[in-house]
Amino acid sequence: MTIEKSPLAPSEFASLKTIGGAQPRVSRAQYKQWDRCDLTFVELGEGTTVAGVTTRSQCPSPEVEWCRDALTHGKARALIVNAGNANAFTGNRGRAAVEAIATKVSGHLSCEQSEIFICSTGVIGEPLPIDKAEAGLEAAFSAPEARWEEAAHAIGTTDTFPKGASARAMIGDTAVQISGIVKGSGMIAPDMATMLGFVFTDGAIDAKFLQDLLNRATAKSFNCITVDSDTSTSDTVLVFATGKAGNAPLASFDDAGANAFAAALEQVCLDLAHLVVRDGEGASKFIEIAVEGAEDDESARRVGLSIANSPLVKTAIAGEDANWGRIVMAVGKAGEPADRDRLSIRFGATQVARNGVAVEDYDEAPVAAHLKGDAIEIGIDLGIGDGRATVWTCDLTHGYISINADYRS
Amino acid sequence: MTIEKSPLAPSEFASLKTIGGAQPRVSRAQYKQWDRCDLTFVELGEGTTVAGVTTRSQCPSPEVEWCRDALTHGKARALIVNAGNANAFTGNRGRAAVEAIATKVSGHLSCEQSEIFICSTGVIGEPLPIDKAEAGLEAAFSAPEARWEEAAHAIGTTDTFPKGASARAMIGDTAVQISGIVKGSGMIAPDMATMLGFVFTDGAIDAKFLQDLLNRATAKSFNCITVDSDTSTSDTVLVFATGKAGNAPLASFDDAGANAFAAALEQVCLDLAHLVVRDGEGASKFIEIAVEGAEDDESARRVGLSIANSPLVKTAIAGEDANWGRIVMAVGKAGEPADRDRLSIRFGATQVARNGVAVEDYDEAPVAAHLKGDAIEIGIDLGIGDGRATVWTCDLTHGYISINADYRS
Repeated sequence: MTIEKSPLAPSEFASLKTIGGAQPRVSRAQYKQWDRCDLTFVELGEGTTVAGVTTRSQCPSPEVEWCRDALTHGKARALIVNAGNANAFTGNRGRAAVEAIATKVSGHLSCEQSEIFICSTGVIGEPLPIDKAEAGLEAAFSAPEARWEEAAHAIGTTDTFPKGASARAMIGDTAVQISGIVKGSGMIAPDMATMLGFVFTDGAIDAKFLQDLLNRATAKSFNCITVDSDTSTSDTVLVFATGKAGNAPLASFDDAGANAFAAALEQVCLDLAHLVVRDGEGASKFIEIAVEGAEDDESARRVGLSIANSPLVKTAIAGEDANWGRIVMAVGKAGEPADRDRLSIRFGATQVARNGVAVEDYDEAPVAAHLKGDAIEIGIDLGIGDGRATVWTCDLTHGYISINADYRS
Repeated sequence: MTIEKSPLAPSEFASLKTIGGAQPRVSRAQYKQWDRCDLTFVELGEGTTVAGVTTRSQCPSPEVEWCRDALTHGKARALIVNAGNANAFTGNRGRAAVEAIATKVSGHLSCEQSEIFICSTGVIGEPLPIDKAEAGLEAAFSAPEARWEEAAHAIGTTDTFPKGASARAMIGDTAVQISGIVKGSGMIAPDMATMLGFVFTDGAIDAKFLQDLLNRATAKSFNCITVDSDTSTSDTVLVFATGKAGNAPLASFDDAGANAFAAALEQVCLDLAHLVVRDGEGASKFIEIAVEGAEDDESARRVGLSIANSPLVKTAIAGEDANWGRIVMAVGKAGEPADRDRLSIRFGATQVARNGVAVEDYDEAPVAAHLKGDAIEIGIDLGIGDGRATVWTCDLTHGYISINADYRS
């Protein structure tokens, strides 16, 4: 099967700023029969703090369990990412593979095993082969430092393009850099999906505060996207702060520069999340759904995701059909407070329904023109409160079926 | 757009038993430009009791609101079904259309308006044209009695075949007939979908007990199917009991014959629900998902529906791929109690995973043969309790995309 590059791919990889204290290296573990790097090793300087969020799946991979345990210590010296094999649902053999990697890397760096973070993505149900992992690690240890673009390639699976984003913030007089990479294009839904995201900063940030900042950023980025409503066993987002920028460490919002750093981190997470949607399997259109007038923000997010996950809405957009009746349906099925007779809907800038009825004789020309584009905006006003949220998804096309009806074959 | 008959269609319409006291008639209201009957009028004898369940959508159609009000009286003299226009999200004009129909039919039958039940299905957002409805009713009033197959045709929209089922039960010495018809093939999910189901019996059943029986039957039939996870604004299932069989009226499970009647009603509802799945938009395979070992029955149903609604599971089945990793994923995302290391999965009769790991060297031949068929069985044992449920769905194919990317056009 040939996977073509998504038509929504950016024209080029955003060139990422290097991060002092974080050196990526890549190698070929050959987890699958392919001609590419599939093991990523990022060495992190001493003193690096870490925070993370993981899948809410009841069947998480051993890597996810490992990262959850390691996160309780808040310190990191290395990140290892295996692509091509998720190592999920593999019992004791899967756990053994994770432990073997931790043992090898902690030996190499002379650090604690709890400072090693491990993620794997790919097929479920086949134990990660320890021999391939160990040989891949050996090769990575002696490899030259890689560009972030190479790492973004190496962590991908069905991704059709590498994904990265950078931002910077001033903490006092110190410029702090943030660079992140992400992988994922299917099995993508809120609360994490087969999505791995890694964000690095040279800022000095207390681990607990870093976790707080990541939770806030995730709520408005990775947890507001969906490709197909499916949630993976392996989803993980980690953020590492090496402290090499030399800023006065941030430990709370009372510290100068904390808001600027928080905003920059959220921007990087949002950029990465959008890239995942742009690479949604089979996607031909990037869809932004802005919900306002909900009972509260969380209710607005749920209504937005009900629309974003509706196969009938997604196929209508694929067909460039302003079928707002399906949006009414999706609002109705969300189970959130709504009043049919106050509901208003727009496509792009054109209001098509207001207060529960179609806008009579609305101009169809701008709506049709908007739907022919590859960036679609849908606006919903529930008319009952002040809650608002924006979510992002892609359309559902023949491409999704083609990719997923013969993925494993 | 041409819609071909589903490959899963039964070879012929099940010939339905006539029901004393229920006379269907059909006519051409021409709600759309098509060459078919689209208005169904079923006259019900005096003394007919009624029960019903309706969509949980927060944006229901005025017909749904009308039926909910009428159900509080428990008596019925007529059912009217309009196909081609759902009359949903149409504000005051939609409500006026429903009232006009109720006025006309109650005048014709010299009965209360609350004894008139009205359902509409089709495009959302366009008020039902009152003139067409009234002319269609006039034509139906004077039409000859129709066969149930003709009524099953007339209530359909994107359905590719008419759907009906019959059963009978003995209440004491009296044979009681039950016949039902249903429409629906997309926007189908639990808690009702764009699904209209109408069941008629000549049994004499107290309205409150009939409601209890319908609730029980629905829980194991219509609420255990899904095509695309989308829930409509118009879903309604009504059951009418004319009493013409002359049995001693049933009012509780203490009455002789109540269990037999309950079983027959459940069988008709289940047969009808299965027919909807067989006509799932684009469906090429009928999928039964049996979940056992869950914390309780409701948890088992939720896990089953999480699997049944997963686009990745549905596309894997379409591709005849025994990708049980996606089933693990769908179990994990259900949010129900589960233990990865006790989870077992089978396709047909072949166990492919047991206690959280793949069964080593399981025989792939019978699995491949099973997946090539058009009736797929997936068995899940969560291994943590006694809860069990069975749900039904269909695969997700290019056909679904084709049908729904240009439905309105």
